[in-house]
Amino acid sequence: MIEEIFEQPQVLEQTLKEEMPKTEALGRRLKERDIDLIVLVARGSSDNAALFGRYLLEVTTGIPVSLSAPSVFTLYDAKLDLSRALVVGVSQSGEGTDINLVLEKAKASGAFTLAVTNEAGSTMASLADETLLIRAGRERSVAATKTYTGQMLLFYLLAECLGGRQLGIEAIPELTFKSLETAETIQGYVERYAFMEQCVVVGRGLNYGNAYELALKLMETCYVVAERFSSADFFHGPLAIVERRFPVLMFAPEGAVAQGNIDLLERLGELRADSLSITNSHRIAELSSRAVMLDESIDEFLSPIPFVVPGQLFAAYLSAAKGLDADAPRSLKKVTQTI
Amino acid sequence: MIEEIFEQPQVLEQTLKEEMPKTEALGRRLKERDIDLIVLVARGSSDNAALFGRYLLEVTTGIPVSLSAPSVFTLYDAKLDLSRALVVGVSQSGEGTDINLVLEKAKASGAFTLAVTNEAGSTMASLADETLLIRAGRERSVAATKTYTGQMLLFYLLAECLGGRQLGIEAIPELTFKSLETAETIQGYVERYAFMEQCVVVGRGLNYGNAYELALKLMETCYVVAERFSSADFFHGPLAIVERRFPVLMFAPEGAVAQGNIDLLERLGELRADSLSITNSHRIAELSSRAVMLDESIDEFLSPIPFVVPGQLFAAYLSAAKGLDADAPRSLKKVTQTI
Repeated sequence: MIEEIFEQPQVLEQTLKEEMPKTEALGRRLKERDIDLIVLVARGSSDNAALFGRYLLEVTTGIPVSLSAPSVFTLYDAKLDLSRALVVGVSQSGEGTDINLVLEKAKASGAFTLAVTNEAGSTMASLADETLLIRAGRERSVAATKTYTGQMLLFYLLAECLGGRQLGIEAIPELTFKSLETAETIQGYVERYAFMEQCVVVGRGLNYGNAYELALKLMETCYVVAERFSSADFFHGPLAIVERRFPVLMFAPEGAVAQGNIDLLERLGELRADSLSITNSHRIAELSSRAVMLDESIDEFLSPIPFVVPGQLFAAYLSAAKGLDADAPRSLKKVTQTI
Repeated sequence: MIEEIFEQPQVLEQTLKEEMPKTEALGRRLKERDIDLIVLVARGSSDNAALFGRYLLEVTTGIPVSLSAPSVFTLYDAKLDLSRALVVGVSQSGEGTDINLVLEKAKASGAFTLAVTNEAGSTMASLADETLLIRAGRERSVAATKTYTGQMLLFYLLAECLGGRQLGIEAIPELTFKSLETAETIQGYVERYAFMEQCVVVGRGLNYGNAYELALKLMETCYVVAERFSSADFFHGPLAIVERRFPVLMFAPEGAVAQGNIDLLERLGELRADSLSITNSHRIAELSSRAVMLDESIDEFLSPIPFVVPGQLFAAYLSAAKGLDADAPRSLKKVTQTI
């Protein structure tokens, strides 16, 4: 897992280089169709990447996005009208039975389908109208890291295709490389959390998917019961679970979401909670019990990939600090089949 | 809270009686517009009702549904094309600042807007094109119960309006009344869980929103760190947190979702987890460590309201068993304002 976390800048670089040239033709094909809805279909880490994609695509393209509920198709056999929809399947292996079934049904009902996967020869790639490929090589760790950020990067490419404007994503591999420099700080921090059994992970907007992803990594590799909320939803009830020293991990970049995170940190301070922020804001770092500081100049729009990296490192190092093996989580296999 | 749980059959009866007559005119107005997307906007318990509404509406109307991310509008100021959309705001008080802002923006961009609220004189009711009212009277408990099931019932009415077929919902108040007969069984069960500090709540499809809602009740009134998953998502990683005696609560009706829940219960049995099912299937009851049995004849389509009632009772009685006051959860107020 650690090895694959460190491979990410290079995977992102490679993915940009190989997939960028595809986007012009893809953009043309999408423009020919009168797309007025984007549906994202995924499970697990891929679903967390899709949660990021949802915010990115709505904000940059103005097209409403729906995160698909596969059971609507697979269990209730509903016939949705998707004739003006772009349906995007997201799967590391491209072999998720339910995801592929949704793609097939969507295609049959007239949708344009796109596969986002790490496997060019997968069932998903063969059944979708177009494919964007993560260039991650084989991912050996059960806990996805490089394919998660690879999927996020492909959502940026898709956003550029559909929105018609450049987002400056060429900077992402370098920003991700710099994030890896936090490894030492994080190795120091995890000692404090060795006996943590439960926590909440908070993120909002473009970093909301990261909250889900870090929570999932903590469940998979550290067996921590990790809840995940947006800072806004957290105020609507779940705040009641917080007591003195309750651990709250937070993705808190500068930008549109900063004020909400500041409000939450102030409240957590009153409750004497233990807050650990991944941030590039000095104000937020000051309000947190401890912080992983990233480059101040990172724009919120480009923050999700560089910000998740310290989260991945935290999970991997915490797993080791707990005496567990992040690469062999109990009860799990790499590819999970559900309907 | 207990009192309000027991008021539900009467609230549902009253809501049906008063709101059913509105639906013919509403159905006509919606048919005049070429609705090809439904967007649901809510926070907290209302958002859990919306999660139920999402499945119900997609399955019964064939119109894709998106659960809105308010920050897309409130923080990132995106302009979504919602000209063919029905946008439904769901709020007990009708005074959620962010929800109302989304409704206003949606209306300005051409959407037809509907308010689902308990307050006829609220800001939300005044700004929406149409309103469906929960007839719950004042809800005094911070933990929503009767407004949650009232909102669910209004989603059934909306589904009938849009889908053009009767769903048999007149049976729901009586089914809900019968669910209250489980109170004694549940009072016996909660003793076992008095020291439970964390758990997972599972539900799928039409009962997925109930999993979120029971988890929220457990967080608000019992301070239990309660995760929520669909049985399918649970297999994609989170299963790793389960060890011997780990408590898993499950909404597991007969019907389309039964097989997935059976598969999960078999796996949980191997892991020696502690499973408590709310079910009307003898097979599922046998596979569970313990079960709350409901009427076998309840159709899955009508199950979500009668099934959540034992969950509400469980949270309320567990709160008492823990020596807490379900009506005065720490850190919370009845109406929460976020942007």
